Amino acid sequence: MSLEDFSRSLGYVFRDRDLLIRALTHRSHGAAHNERLEFLGDSVVNCAVALELYCKFPDLTEGELSRLRASLVSQPTLAAIAKAYRIGENLKLGEGELKSGGPQRPSILADALEAVMGAVFIDGGFDAAASVAHTLFSSALADIDPATTGKDAKTLLQEYLQSRKLPLPRYSVLTVSGEAHEQLFHVECEIAQLNIRSQGEGTSRRSAEQQAARAAYECVLRT
Amino acid sequence: MSLEDFSRSLGYVFRDRDLLIRALTHRSHGAAHNERLEFLGDSVVNCAVALELYCKFPDLTEGELSRLRASLVSQPTLAAIAKAYRIGENLKLGEGELKSGGPQRPSILADALEAVMGAVFIDGGFDAAASVAHTLFSSALADIDPATTGKDAKTLLQEYLQSRKLPLPRYSVLTVSGEAHEQLFHVECEIAQLNIRSQGEGTSRRSAEQQAARAAYECVLRT
Repeated sequence: MSLEDFSRSLGYVFRDRDLLIRALTHRSHGAAHNERLEFLGDSVVNCAVALELYCKFPDLTEGELSRLRASLVSQPTLAAIAKAYRIGENLKLGEGELKSGGPQRPSILADALEAVMGAVFIDGGFDAAASVAHTLFSSALADIDPATTGKDAKTLLQEYLQSRKLPLPRYSVLTVSGEAHEQLFHVECEIAQLNIRSQGEGTSRRSAEQQAARAAYECVLRT
Repeated sequence: MSLEDFSRSLGYVFRDRDLLIRALTHRSHGAAHNERLEFLGDSVVNCAVALELYCKFPDLTEGELSRLRASLVSQPTLAAIAKAYRIGENLKLGEGELKSGGPQRPSILADALEAVMGAVFIDGGFDAAASVAHTLFSSALADIDPATTGKDAKTLLQEYLQSRKLPLPRYSVLTVSGEAHEQLFHVECEIAQLNIRSQGEGTSRRSAEQQAARAAYECVLRT
């Protein structure tokens, strides 16, 4: 995909094409890299997405809007959008990054997408940036479910059980292995009344519980 | 100060005056409160300030710009600006908040200022909000010193000593008192070569060291 096609897919034509090139230049490639544009882009994406959410969900509270925005402007979502728009094909990376899979790395992709947004902001102003954000995030915005988006698995599972007046799950640590500074927790989540037991592991009790809760939640949704 | 005078001091005239009133209404006052506008305002302030810093400091790195922005958009700075613009005189608060000093509370003032910025954003668009932010933050922006703004006292002290090729300060815990969950640390900071000893206390070793470093830094600047 050429740089022109990429720009066209955003629905924006740059006055200053060099700004777009800089936005796609990783610091491993040289001094004229995209990190300052990424700083700017992060803030303009946050602002444009905040405005979209504010208008789309007039009944949500500030806390709910914040949760939805955090989910939309997270590295996984940004990297997925960057992939869908094939940003990797026009990235400029240093030799080392190129060889070690840089063009597919989520952090590099997400940062470059933010930098592109920063470049549009500088090149065409806020309304241009908001319009590109509207394009980029349209499918992520359409997929939002305020009841679930951005909630962790333990919360989702708990809310599901409460809504059906079922007792809450019980989490218990089965084993803890490894040295003090790199312990591995093995946890069980039990919902006795539904006959569900799931397990999870992680480097903290919290993350192990989340993994177990996710497995239990998927199990619950299937029943 | 009347609502009209306040609006005039921002350099902005609202098309929808009710939006401004809502921005100045704390949740303790009733259902039509300012929290959603605050969500929006937080993001537009961040974006407008990011743009100011990006343009004002073309040579700073992303990390330096982030530090400066965090300092400008912190609660203390926002509350100070809100006070300077006498926002408290037009706040709508519930009885309880009014009696307990709500109109002077930094969190309430900072939140209301953000909400006003959100109201300008909705009422007049981004460029209007950026223009108001330019007015509100002009003196804070003028006061910025990239070498010091937003840096903690230990960092400032260390950088000062390094720039003069002096040895680094030595921190030592003098006493720890109190119960396990509310300990009080008493710390000394010593710069032997300058014959400086300062002390600090805090509920964590870190905060006690910062306090001691601040005292030592002030001492160093005076010598």
